[in-house]
Amino acid sequence: MSTDITLVLGGARSGKSRYAEGLVTASPGPRVYIATAQVWDSEMADRVARHKEDRGPGWTTVEEPLDLPGALRRHAGAGTGVLVDCLTLWLSNLMMADADVPVRSAELLAALAGVEGRVVLVSNEVGLGIVPDNALARRFRDHAGRLHQDIAAVAQRVAFVAAGLPLLLKGETP
Amino acid sequence: MSTDITLVLGGARSGKSRYAEGLVTASPGPRVYIATAQVWDSEMADRVARHKEDRGPGWTTVEEPLDLPGALRRHAGAGTGVLVDCLTLWLSNLMMADADVPVRSAELLAALAGVEGRVVLVSNEVGLGIVPDNALARRFRDHAGRLHQDIAAVAQRVAFVAAGLPLLLKGETP
Amino acid sequence: MSTDITLVLGGARSGKSRYAEGLVTASPGPRVYIATAQVWDSEMADRVARHKEDRGPGWTTVEEPLDLPGALRRHAGAGTGVLVDCLTLWLSNLMMADADVPVRSAELLAALAGVEGRVVLVSNEVGLGIVPDNALARRFRDHAGRLHQDIAAVAQRVAFVAAGLPLLLKGETP
Repeated sequence: MSTDITLVLGGARSGKSRYAEGLVTASPGPRVYIATAQVWDSEMADRVARHKEDRGPGWTTVEEPLDLPGALRRHAGAGTGVLVDCLTLWLSNLMMADADVPVRSAELLAALAGVEGRVVLVSNEVGLGIVPDNALARRFRDHAGRLHQDIAAVAQRVAFVAAGLPLLLKGETP
Repeated sequence: MSTDITLVLGGARSGKSRYAEGLVTASPGPRVYIATAQVWDSEMADRVARHKEDRGPGWTTVEEPLDLPGALRRHAGAGTGVLVDCLTLWLSNLMMADADVPVRSAELLAALAGVEGRVVLVSNEVGLGIVPDNALARRFRDHAGRLHQDIAAVAQRVAFVAAGLPLLLKGETP
Repeated sequence: MSTDITLVLGGARSGKSRYAEGLVTASPGPRVYIATAQVWDSEMADRVARHKEDRGPGWTTVEEPLDLPGALRRHAGAGTGVLVDCLTLWLSNLMMADADVPVRSAELLAALAGVEGRVVLVSNEVGLGIVPDNALARRFRDHAGRLHQDIAAVAQRVAFVAAGLPLLLKGETP
């Protein structure tokens, strides 16, 4: 069994999705894009459409706002490249659905422990600004930070992307 | 023709301006400081005065809140060191003036492609906190992130500064 | 006299405290935890209790929300490991107490210049989001950024932690 997990962290418009795509397309084999975005308004619809266009052909797109562990189990596999974009939207969807985030995060880690093939997970680093006024945003930051630490601990590679440039915090360029 | 472009990213009070100045003053020749700040209140006036004092003598200061591409074309040149401080204020000024930011960003990139000499551009990394509530701030983050990626792609050097310490994301210390 | 000062910067839930603890426990000798947190509500009480549990036995805990320079002088010493968690809460406490933050920061630097032994200071990087609306938060960012720069200049080691992974901006792993 060969698993290759990469966590790609970065800020808004940092180029993290494009870098993550490059990691998936660098290998042959089928490519699956798991989109966690829930389209609520035209701003989000524009973003999703633009991302899809940027990605180009050759991808199977799966929209899965909540059951990310299940989507990973269904779509990841030996010889396949899976891009999850992104974990922070998934966490946000779980919180809006009143889900138990620590339980769901543990399910995601269990799914990652069982998958084969290449999996690249994109997530926003959101904890480097002023402490937010509202408690929900603070809980969101906490959930995201913990999930990043847990995934980083099992990942083969962790990259922080700024201005389109990756900085490897763990592992080496594949 | 010899061009040497550096993008210096960092947070608030990260020491990015001081690091950027050091890159310019390390070389002989005239030095031009292009300030994009628009002074609206005493807080900003204090900041500008403090920066000017920190910089010391030997600099020509040019205030250019909007036409940064023009200022670069007028002041950059072989043997000259130009410091632009900062891109995020420029973007903010453009947005307040209802300018077409992508068009202006493209003009800046065209100007950079044509200049000679050493140019150091300072900018705030603003995308690593919680997603802002208001749409204007989100657009600002998007504009800044895209501009940083575009400049980083053509720059010889990209540094991320924290606690006064540079981390090179691209290129080497000159 | 042997002093070993480390500044550990990171975002919310970045794993910075755990990393900092590891630096202290890696050496033999007594360990002192200087907590700057002021417990105002149950959210903070939970956080403090969880941190204490995570830390495990073998630590003397000192609560010192305001006189951090004094606490350092009293508790640091040759052969002792001191963990300060965290500078940003200390700055926040000083601001709420209407203290003169630059004067207090200078006192902290003077105390650091005089201590012996291993001292690890944890702080939140808070300057990488959108400029905050309120002036108090902007002043807080400025105080934190300046203090980080000043401590980084005298520290043997500066680490930036993301997703539990340290990135050394200065010095080497001890």
